[in-house]
Amino acid sequence: METMIRKRQREIVEALEKVDGKKFLIDTWERPDAGGGGGISCVLQDGNVFEKAGVNISIVYGKLPPAAVRSMRAHHKSLDPTAESLDFFAAGLSMVLHPKNPMAPTVHLNYRYFETMNDDGTAKAWWFGGGTDLTPSYLFEEDAILFHKSLKEACDRHDLMFYPKFKNWCDEYFYVKHRHESRGIGGIFFDDLEDRDPEKLLEFSTDCLDSFLPSYLPIIEKRKVPASPAAHHHALCDVHQLTSFKDMPFTPEQKQWQQLRRGRYVEFNLIYDRGTAFGLNTPNARVESILMSLPLTASWQYMHSPAPGSREQCVLDVLKNPREWV
Amino acid sequence: METMIRKRQREIVEALEKVDGKKFLIDTWERPDAGGGGGISCVLQDGNVFEKAGVNISIVYGKLPPAAVRSMRAHHKSLDPTAESLDFFAAGLSMVLHPKNPMAPTVHLNYRYFETMNDDGTAKAWWFGGGTDLTPSYLFEEDAILFHKSLKEACDRHDLMFYPKFKNWCDEYFYVKHRHESRGIGGIFFDDLEDRDPEKLLEFSTDCLDSFLPSYLPIIEKRKVPASPAAHHHALCDVHQLTSFKDMPFTPEQKQWQQLRRGRYVEFNLIYDRGTAFGLNTPNARVESILMSLPLTASWQYMHSPAPGSREQCVLDVLKNPREWV
Repeated sequence: METMIRKRQREIVEALEKVDGKKFLIDTWERPDAGGGGGISCVLQDGNVFEKAGVNISIVYGKLPPAAVRSMRAHHKSLDPTAESLDFFAAGLSMVLHPKNPMAPTVHLNYRYFETMNDDGTAKAWWFGGGTDLTPSYLFEEDAILFHKSLKEACDRHDLMFYPKFKNWCDEYFYVKHRHESRGIGGIFFDDLEDRDPEKLLEFSTDCLDSFLPSYLPIIEKRKVPASPAAHHHALCDVHQLTSFKDMPFTPEQKQWQQLRRGRYVEFNLIYDRGTAFGLNTPNARVESILMSLPLTASWQYMHSPAPGSREQCVLDVLKNPREWV
Repeated sequence: METMIRKRQREIVEALEKVDGKKFLIDTWERPDAGGGGGISCVLQDGNVFEKAGVNISIVYGKLPPAAVRSMRAHHKSLDPTAESLDFFAAGLSMVLHPKNPMAPTVHLNYRYFETMNDDGTAKAWWFGGGTDLTPSYLFEEDAILFHKSLKEACDRHDLMFYPKFKNWCDEYFYVKHRHESRGIGGIFFDDLEDRDPEKLLEFSTDCLDSFLPSYLPIIEKRKVPASPAAHHHALCDVHQLTSFKDMPFTPEQKQWQQLRRGRYVEFNLIYDRGTAFGLNTPNARVESILMSLPLTASWQYMHSPAPGSREQCVLDVLKNPREWV
């Protein structure tokens, strides 16, 4: 797992630098005091294509306090919830990309492996978790289909039950309860996966991770620049509004809509996300690496409501009623 | 309590409209389905002085689910934590003002009364809670002193132990654990207050609320416009940077610093604030009224760190080491 995520981090950073034209800032850090390990945070801020892009790995071990254990694995039966602390090992890769252009979707992925130890150092429990999901401010049906199709193909190579199960799990996990809407148009999400040979699950995680660049790069290439006229016909709802898209990539109003959607992204990450809660509850956590998932800019406007039939309303409709994309 | 907060809401809205020159939007709402009551939300957005200002009252009653009971009162012994639901009555006024000028501080206050009921409708428990606190992006010592002094005077009229106790409680409550810093420079905070005649506690809450306009209006009047040269001498640290303040109220860099501080404000409100958690866990809560506390705009920049000795670092120092202001 460690070898795999180190290699994938380099590949993804390299590919994204080619897209953006700007270099990532690379921080290698070690976990002070309370435990061992460390990580590498790669962040690109205020780039040409990405307003903020973070690709992080961390390989950490030590003792976890009860609060972190609880947020780590809400439903794992083999963990003693009354334990004062727990020896653990964790290795994971996390990525969040917030593009500048409101027509280009935000994307997030995280693949991780956890192990808890008995006092004598032998493994007590282990599991894999992960997922990839897309959060567009404006919906292009072809993007959603390409993205889901590529994840389904990765899943199908391992178990035909994986995609339907993990697609639903994703819709449930990223549901923003107080807004009655999903964070985005989903993808896959899984946790506590331990029901087969760990080598097979490592291969599965690797396959999912490898499906990211081939599915996202075509999307960002199309949306970062004025779209070709052909692409307009695949945009959902009100395609007519897009006729001048080539000359005017996006309006200030569309940028403001993106800012509002980013506000919702922040709400999910800070209120509900288990990974963020786990990170912030880990002693001597590297806060800047955990919160690199937050956008460079976000906005909250009181009582904002898109016009009926608008492209903005169209996105909301899909967020309130998740679709089957493949 | 209800009569008092209705009157104070009108007074505060009227005074702030005079400062801003723009009118508040006034929404009267009722709580659908799950319970009774409603409220009035007054919000001014993108004003001349305030980027976002919200002054809300709510008077609600009905049944609370366990999650809301837990977030309402973490340490109240008389509430049964295993109860399926709980009959309650709550009346409160909440206010958050985010000024445009980074030299003008954000301010928050909340005063509330709770009652829980037995099945036969008799009161089971009641208590008052509340507080007022200031969150500057740039520190002016005279503002901090005026603000705290006025709260201390209100407290001292009721109990000489109130200010020291509630000032410390405020510093503790608004501590952002993962950042190792306070949200702002404090004020007062209290909860679960039930140790004397309720009429006396209502008078105390009223006095605290009444101390707000006389302490904040002079601050906003001074900071919303280019400050007078005299004011500069009271600015903490690096007062020399301010010599051209009269001609240039604030720089884009100072505005960006304010945006970063607003990001921290969002972190506190969404991760730690009990009032927000209580609100979002209340069935059929009016989300837009609860989250009016969030700023119109906020920013998260990876690894931002102010220069040593800068005015920005000076604020951080005070947030990491709360001071006694009076």
